[in-house]
Amino acid sequence: MINSPESDEARRHREKMEKRKAVQDAEVAGKTVTEKGLLMVHTGPGKGKSTAAFGLALRALGHGWKVGVVQFGKGQWRSGERDMLEKLGAVSWHTLGEGFTWETQDRARDEAAARRAWEKACELMDDPAIRLLVLDELNISLRYEHLPLAEVVARLSARRPDLHIVVTGRNAKPELLAAADLVTEMTLVKHHFAAGVKAQEGIEF
Amino acid sequence: MINSPESDEARRHREKMEKRKAVQDAEVAGKTVTEKGLLMVHTGPGKGKSTAAFGLALRALGHGWKVGVVQFGKGQWRSGERDMLEKLGAVSWHTLGEGFTWETQDRARDEAAARRAWEKACELMDDPAIRLLVLDELNISLRYEHLPLAEVVARLSARRPDLHIVVTGRNAKPELLAAADLVTEMTLVKHHFAAGVKAQEGIEF
Repeated sequence: MINSPESDEARRHREKMEKRKAVQDAEVAGKTVTEKGLLMVHTGPGKGKSTAAFGLALRALGHGWKVGVVQFGKGQWRSGERDMLEKLGAVSWHTLGEGFTWETQDRARDEAAARRAWEKACELMDDPAIRLLVLDELNISLRYEHLPLAEVVARLSARRPDLHIVVTGRNAKPELLAAADLVTEMTLVKHHFAAGVKAQEGIEF
Repeated sequence: MINSPESDEARRHREKMEKRKAVQDAEVAGKTVTEKGLLMVHTGPGKGKSTAAFGLALRALGHGWKVGVVQFGKGQWRSGERDMLEKLGAVSWHTLGEGFTWETQDRARDEAAARRAWEKACELMDDPAIRLLVLDELNISLRYEHLPLAEVVARLSARRPDLHIVVTGRNAKPELLAAADLVTEMTLVKHHFAAGVKAQEGIEF
């Protein structure tokens, strides 16, 4: 690069950016807890709650971690992701939900399915090889009271210090949010359904 | 299942769920446009914007699609995802950003990097084999005016009908939102940084 004299504008820009960088650096230096298994919740009415969880699974596999996935909702909508993650190796994937309640219309069956999924989740939490556990649509099971909230929150809170957990689904319970380290709400700002466009293969399923 | 008489509670639940399913079915039947390449934007201050985009890439690969990725920000934070997606095959990945402006503190360099990234994006938009294109952190380049907004929005709007595009980054421009089919805002409800916990390897990078 030619060593030309700096313009006033360039200098102001550089100074502003230097200040911002100093703020960022100080923020990072101020963190004291260096390793902690996070309880993460993706909720809200927008898109991307499960998709971001599977993106996290992809990242975790990229770090050589073993990943567990339990689906509390029905599974066929995620088959593309499942095939791909399993190709990458260390994924223990369990689809134990039987569909949303407005599909099955049978509460006892919903409760039994949620219980089976939760038991599998507990088993995976006890597997020391697993470093990331995705509990997909667990929020739905909690919302419809297919599982006892207090038991679930207590068990998630008692996770191993080296286990990260991500819980997805709309309408996350306040008690779960209180126990979480990281909560992201996906808000729907604009949706093509409103413009009469159908769900798109490869994007929405 | 034993054919026992239905309780009042079970009947009310079933009727409520049947009604909900009828509403859902009618909604799906009302969609008229069946195939359309979507312009999607993931914005907002929360986590998961890029992660959900890489989750979409995973899904697209699961459908046998070819995927393009252009990173307008710096690349090292996504190396795990890159390694994994490239293992799965048809990914054309280009990291052309050189870091956020508060790291580089050189506006001319930022603009040149953004221009190179945008030219690569245009090239991938013209490749008929690519069905999903991720433009990671493009919103940052637009926000700092490293690229002309009108040119970018016009080109994205003129995409092929079978090309889906997802643009990520905070502070998406209103003109881009107006052109988008699907906009999701990731809102930070709670963050472990506030509790003094550092960014976690395998989760945040």
